[in-house]
Amino acid sequence: MNFSCNQTILSDSINIVQKAVSLKTTKPILKGILLKAYNNQLKLVGNNLSIGIENTIEANVKKEGSIVISSKLFGEIIRKLPNETINFSVNENNVIDITCLNTKFSIQGQSALEFPEIEEIDNTEEYEINSLIFKNMIRQTIFAISLDDSRPILTGSLIEIKNDNLSMVSIDGYRLSLKNISIDSDFVNKAVIPGKTLSEVNKILSQLNENNEKIKISITDKHIMFNIEKIKIISRLLDGEFIKYDQIIPNEFNSIVKINTSELLRSIERASLLAIESKSNTIKMIFKNSNLNISTNVEIGSVDENVDIELKGKEIEIGFNPKYLMDALKIIDSEEVIMKLTTSVSPCIIKPVDDESYTYLILPVRLS
Amino acid sequence: MNFSCNQTILSDSINIVQKAVSLKTTKPILKGILLKAYNNQLKLVGNNLSIGIENTIEANVKKEGSIVISSKLFGEIIRKLPNETINFSVNENNVIDITCLNTKFSIQGQSALEFPEIEEIDNTEEYEINSLIFKNMIRQTIFAISLDDSRPILTGSLIEIKNDNLSMVSIDGYRLSLKNISIDSDFVNKAVIPGKTLSEVNKILSQLNENNEKIKISITDKHIMFNIEKIKIISRLLDGEFIKYDQIIPNEFNSIVKINTSELLRSIERASLLAIESKSNTIKMIFKNSNLNISTNVEIGSVDENVDIELKGKEIEIGFNPKYLMDALKIIDSEEVIMKLTTSVSPCIIKPVDDESYTYLILPVRLS
Repeated sequence: MNFSCNQTILSDSINIVQKAVSLKTTKPILKGILLKAYNNQLKLVGNNLSIGIENTIEANVKKEGSIVISSKLFGEIIRKLPNETINFSVNENNVIDITCLNTKFSIQGQSALEFPEIEEIDNTEEYEINSLIFKNMIRQTIFAISLDDSRPILTGSLIEIKNDNLSMVSIDGYRLSLKNISIDSDFVNKAVIPGKTLSEVNKILSQLNENNEKIKISITDKHIMFNIEKIKIISRLLDGEFIKYDQIIPNEFNSIVKINTSELLRSIERASLLAIESKSNTIKMIFKNSNLNISTNVEIGSVDENVDIELKGKEIEIGFNPKYLMDALKIIDSEEVIMKLTTSVSPCIIKPVDDESYTYLILPVRLS
Repeated sequence: MNFSCNQTILSDSINIVQKAVSLKTTKPILKGILLKAYNNQLKLVGNNLSIGIENTIEANVKKEGSIVISSKLFGEIIRKLPNETINFSVNENNVIDITCLNTKFSIQGQSALEFPEIEEIDNTEEYEINSLIFKNMIRQTIFAISLDDSRPILTGSLIEIKNDNLSMVSIDGYRLSLKNISIDSDFVNKAVIPGKTLSEVNKILSQLNENNEKIKISITDKHIMFNIEKIKIISRLLDGEFIKYDQIIPNEFNSIVKINTSELLRSIERASLLAIESKSNTIKMIFKNSNLNISTNVEIGSVDENVDIELKGKEIEIGFNPKYLMDALKIIDSEEVIMKLTTSVSPCIIKPVDDESYTYLILPVRLS
């Protein structure tokens, strides 16, 4: 095996496939990156058996072949080399010589035979989405994924395709975050994607920073595949039935409130300081006439905030965990939000003003 | 007590005095900041009994007085308020009302009577230094302070004033870092300043970012005081005799080498990857003719680097812990460095080219 390639292109590619490499594993081969040189290209593969990532880059291949090299060491070496051509040659003992200008590394590699190749999945259905839109979809829902392993299905987000619509929803038992986008597809499909996978896809999209690229998605019974340019990400899906969330989103409300998003966020951030410090984690909100009063009253002190609102319907007093409000207000980009309330023990809905594509549901906290 | 002041000015001041506030202490009052309002100014004080920091800012004082408030909570509240005038009033129960636009906090304070005031020190001698020069002096020596508490005197830097010269030196048993600057003073004095104090002074100088300010230094038997504008930092000194470092810096050498600083640093960084990964922490350097060969040979692989040099004197083979070389090369700003060597078991001296003000001494490691 003998090939050469550019340092920066290789380093960027390592950053991508490393996201699927196990740091802690009982199978040492999974701590490595598979390198396959053929047809004047180099394929890099990381695979921790839950997620596998493949990326193909240009290379000048003099002799085809494959090898596995420690991901951590390989990444560090390539990152520290200058932006020049790097030459690789592998001998019969799997020793990899890496040379670049006045530097020569010789590193013990492992046979590629033991490396678990990524399972190919059938591309029967493929959904094509603008990557900037998909990235935003992840950002607006990923934070509401459950961190609690006792209900494994909630540690992922449900994506559902039907009626030319793709929805993504996360639920953690206290709140729900739902985003819809329209796509051009006649298929009906759904899958629950592990939070970890969405987080890695998000990081890769940020790293590419080519916002007009398309991301292509294919789903089978057990797997989902994301294709972005020369990058292929294959992840296992979560098993089981997701919560039928349609049934828990209310349609009728007693109070509908319009508020400036950043004023509301900043007031809640201040009111939350005492709630968090005292570990009560509760703020009280009173919506009345054209004013929202937000307060916390705990042993170490009290805080009282007032925000202008437009209220339609009944006045209402309700308690919330401020973190769950702040999480949603931070990812809503519109200047104003609508809060829809029924009683002090019913779910509250938050939506950006004039935007039906995003819905946040939050359960209130009983005030003592 | 009743006063008002600007949010940004107050927030910046809290950031400064907080550096002397204890987070973990058995005396709860030390987790607080002392506020003293008088003469249309507000004095803020943090004091953990090792370091005390005072800062005075402009305020509109309607009623003079003092109070102690939780440093963490106070800092968070002020940082989250908008950049407007903030009003403070304290009642007879030490409750502090903080109001700003539509926000009102009421926080339980503590009586200022229990707060340990900062000891005043006699300003008999005062040394005035450009703060940028002093900051650089800290940067070039602080990293060689010992982290090992078994020799407490080495957990600080010695500063010494004599013959219109101020020197600062740190030693950790493996290397020594010495910086000299000229000052205008007829005094003779010395003191060992705790590393923690220098680190906080450095952070405050970075925060002020007014590089042409003067820093004024006074030293007594037990304390050192730094005055920067309206900021006063008083620290205890370390007790005991510092190492007589003059005697360990050699004056005669067999080999004198000139090398490009960043080429040398980058080559050592690469060579160190295998040394660190394998925990051998040793690199081999062979200075011969016009070439420096740097290598590591461990179980997981080997690396071989070559750097152009100008060598005067004998060729030499010597081992080093790469971390100690990189630490020095990172803080040397000149394009080239001089390495002065005698034998493979004698200390090596590193200096910036054409700059006598800085000296680094490093002990070699025996090659196996």
